[in-house]
Amino acid sequence: MAPDPAHDLAHLDRVWMNAQIIARGETGVDMCVLVAASYLHDLINLPKDSPDRSQASRQSAEAAGPILAQLGLTADQIDMARHAIVAHSYSAGIHPETTEARIVRDADRLDALGAIGIARTFVVAGALDLSLYEPSDPFARNRVLDDHRYALDHWQVKLLNLANDMITDTGREMARKRVQVMLRFLDDLSAEIGADTPVDLIGPPQ
Amino acid sequence: MAPDPAHDLAHLDRVWMNAQIIARGETGVDMCVLVAASYLHDLINLPKDSPDRSQASRQSAEAAGPILAQLGLTADQIDMARHAIVAHSYSAGIHPETTEARIVRDADRLDALGAIGIARTFVVAGALDLSLYEPSDPFARNRVLDDHRYALDHWQVKLLNLANDMITDTGREMARKRVQVMLRFLDDLSAEIGADTPVDLIGPPQ
Repeated sequence: MAPDPAHDLAHLDRVWMNAQIIARGETGVDMCVLVAASYLHDLINLPKDSPDRSQASRQSAEAAGPILAQLGLTADQIDMARHAIVAHSYSAGIHPETTEARIVRDADRLDALGAIGIARTFVVAGALDLSLYEPSDPFARNRVLDDHRYALDHWQVKLLNLANDMITDTGREMARKRVQVMLRFLDDLSAEIGADTPVDLIGPPQ
Repeated sequence: MAPDPAHDLAHLDRVWMNAQIIARGETGVDMCVLVAASYLHDLINLPKDSPDRSQASRQSAEAAGPILAQLGLTADQIDMARHAIVAHSYSAGIHPETTEARIVRDADRLDALGAIGIARTFVVAGALDLSLYEPSDPFARNRVLDDHRYALDHWQVKLLNLANDMITDTGREMARKRVQVMLRFLDDLSAEIGADTPVDLIGPPQ
């Protein structure tokens, strides 16, 4: 693992924990596939600003092959775990075809939301030397969003709408609660920095 | 200014905003001194992990001299502003003797608390490549706190007790509200990472 506090071993523990919670609402889940894919989904972790980042999930699935075999998974299970790994990524744009793949994808996305999502947003900002927000217009009322410069812009670009992209019912419900945690944080932040209270930052549920 | 998202121009804007709110509860405040000290208190900003960090406020007060004179402050005002600058620092350990110095110190400390304090904690963690928390014991129930390794440890080491160190009544009241925001964040985080809900992390008010 690259030294990256947003993608360290604790991230894998959280994804596996989320995956187990989501799995309780699904039927016929292969838990061996689920635990293997949860822990190996970021096996190749490229930096957030790497141009090859959309290839990371393919590379992880490729590199996971020998490890999955060594763990004793069958050929079918290996295929399932590798599909879950390659399909977890936002940027790879691959549709998850199995229950296990849908669970891993939702479990990973949940870790970008809520209190842990808040922490990870700003850890990434510190590592990439981004500003917290644009001082004259923190919530981008009258400017184009730019999450390569302003950490908070990433919430409107991606995170606050992530609940609408969840595939499992349990994952969607958990995501909605976590988005509320983030919106409450924005309320507190806006009061502290003397900005207008942010409203209507997320679109309607789909 | 060094490129440091926790100590950029927006930090100075927030300190000045906090200072104005606190000043409303005090009498005889020299607002020229207050605005100058608010904006110049971090003039020399040494990295968080620099061994000379406790000298930064002295160096800032020294370097501010010519600027304060150029701004048209009287000799007395320059002395007051420089005292406020040198006495704002936690690590310098200098007692603030004037109302303006007390206000600047509280205003600066407030920016370490609340939603903005949460954001700044993790930005610093990302810049210094710290872990978010210790996975097996996130709230240090059974280990020694180590805020050089774990970002969250800094809250118990320093931030959650900062409200007890505030000097002005308004500053103390604002700090208590912001600590509540942080404790609510810890509740949300502990649920998300599957840890025990943190209780009793801060001492009684003094």
